[in-house]
Amino acid sequence: MRILIIGGAGMIGQKLVARLVKDGKLGTAPIKSIVLSDVVAPAVLKAAFPIQTQVSDLSEPGQAEALIRDKPDVIFHLAAIVSGEAEADFERGYRINLDGTRHLFEAIRRAQYRPRVVFTSSIAVFGAPFPDAIHDEFFLTPLTSYGTQKAIDELLLSDYSRRGFFDGIGIRLPTICVRPGKPNRAASGFFSGIIREPLNGVEAVLPVSEDVRHWHASPRAAIGFLVHAATMDTSVLGARRNITMPGLSVTVGEQIEALRRVAGEKTTGLIRRQADPTIVQIVQGWPRNFSAKRAVDLGFRADRSFEEIIRIYIEDDLPQGSISI
Amino acid sequence: MRILIIGGAGMIGQKLVARLVKDGKLGTAPIKSIVLSDVVAPAVLKAAFPIQTQVSDLSEPGQAEALIRDKPDVIFHLAAIVSGEAEADFERGYRINLDGTRHLFEAIRRAQYRPRVVFTSSIAVFGAPFPDAIHDEFFLTPLTSYGTQKAIDELLLSDYSRRGFFDGIGIRLPTICVRPGKPNRAASGFFSGIIREPLNGVEAVLPVSEDVRHWHASPRAAIGFLVHAATMDTSVLGARRNITMPGLSVTVGEQIEALRRVAGEKTTGLIRRQADPTIVQIVQGWPRNFSAKRAVDLGFRADRSFEEIIRIYIEDDLPQGSISI
Repeated sequence: MRILIIGGAGMIGQKLVARLVKDGKLGTAPIKSIVLSDVVAPAVLKAAFPIQTQVSDLSEPGQAEALIRDKPDVIFHLAAIVSGEAEADFERGYRINLDGTRHLFEAIRRAQYRPRVVFTSSIAVFGAPFPDAIHDEFFLTPLTSYGTQKAIDELLLSDYSRRGFFDGIGIRLPTICVRPGKPNRAASGFFSGIIREPLNGVEAVLPVSEDVRHWHASPRAAIGFLVHAATMDTSVLGARRNITMPGLSVTVGEQIEALRRVAGEKTTGLIRRQADPTIVQIVQGWPRNFSAKRAVDLGFRADRSFEEIIRIYIEDDLPQGSISI
Repeated sequence: MRILIIGGAGMIGQKLVARLVKDGKLGTAPIKSIVLSDVVAPAVLKAAFPIQTQVSDLSEPGQAEALIRDKPDVIFHLAAIVSGEAEADFERGYRINLDGTRHLFEAIRRAQYRPRVVFTSSIAVFGAPFPDAIHDEFFLTPLTSYGTQKAIDELLLSDYSRRGFFDGIGIRLPTICVRPGKPNRAASGFFSGIIREPLNGVEAVLPVSEDVRHWHASPRAAIGFLVHAATMDTSVLGARRNITMPGLSVTVGEQIEALRRVAGEKTTGLIRRQADPTIVQIVQGWPRNFSAKRAVDLGFRADRSFEEIIRIYIEDDLPQGSISI
């Protein structure tokens, strides 16, 4: 089993590699090698098999072909610029998030072999107004260029799979929470920030009201989705190869209450309310809740509670000694 | 009011020009000029205003820019290769139906002005299994490359409109019936063929069973949709700029019965049943019925009966003397 991870320097990419190194196999197949590709050099773990890195930008001509030259069995395509950046720079968003993905799909088609391709899409393919819980047959109405690009990639993935050019599966990740490390340019950053910064003893700004409801999955659950997508029997998918992943629907108030239960009043006291009209407006267009029945039927598993999500952050990512709980 | 029609040599393009020449205006605005563009030279009608033709292929670099150099107020984008051809030639389908459309949208964006863009999409953006009647929030699951390309174009149209680069509206046409002239390479051709050929005294082959149900609009209704889309107030659309047009849901048996009522037993006797497993299978993936409530609320109007659809063909397109009814 030879694996290519595109977007391997990112948070999800790095956590995926760590999981694969720990498991030593993907499903039942022993891992022979991993190639990590990204626009910046990915960090590399020590492993029982070779891990190579490749600095590569899919949107540049010829780079996709070079990446798949050795015909990896499984390709995780995680690379994208985030929503805020794709909205701020229209041309760059389309170049990276649409053309880059299309180059990859085309390179695979021309190489005439049929790898499993796991593509990370996003709930940003949906746009308000919504039903109370978005079901699996609700239409895609993105309200951002990022969401548009992901929705287009999904359509391409379905068509290339239907044609037999590869065996693709697109998974629409919930907002990842708690995202470790520094904030990125995603407008959704505060959902993690209000948990992460206080746990690290740092003040966090909450730019929306506490009744804002959103859809979350821990990084650990997301890695579980990726591994399951790479190993499951895709013949049951038929022509519908893009699936909303299960998650937890909670309000910001419920997030804060869970944090209080896990880490106490002093920690939640580090959350400062300061409304940001721009973010308030963006968030109004975002999904709040899903049924995600199909994913659950297909064996994808969400976190069980927001407290569990917080504990996963503490176990997997919190720098030692930041809190005493 | 200066108008550009891309795909002006096609059946819909030619009927649209004829309507505009007859009306002399679009909505309330007098027409100053029309440019007809296509990959082959479009036929030109005599009119009270100049009609120019331009042979142009949007998928070639620079052609889209040349087409919009004079900044037409309204652009009808009807150009596409049909489903059968896009399925037979993967690369050509994406080049014409996706890249061509994207070139046009990009050229408008770079020209920094904001025309009305009316784009003809298709019910091929939907794929089985379906609910009994496909409602306006049902998801897009194309089962052909053509349907995929149209669905992608719809997403681009929405995003470019949301960004303010143009004022776009996408209309998903029902299958056009009765399509005049010779059969094209669309797998749906028989829906028209079983009406048109017998009315012209020619045998027609019916490749599917009579219980096949499908969604139809006459060419006259389709031109009505285009004109309404070009003149309506788009501010009521919000971010959802692609709309399923209203149509008539009838079975092949009901089509034949309507033909019998309009033209008699001798005419329907010219329909020869000869199952074609390939077409039977393709048609199984096609929509059968829609609610199309949103379009009706927005003022789009369907044909009232399949008999009316047949009579429209006889009035508008049947060569003189073909039948006596």
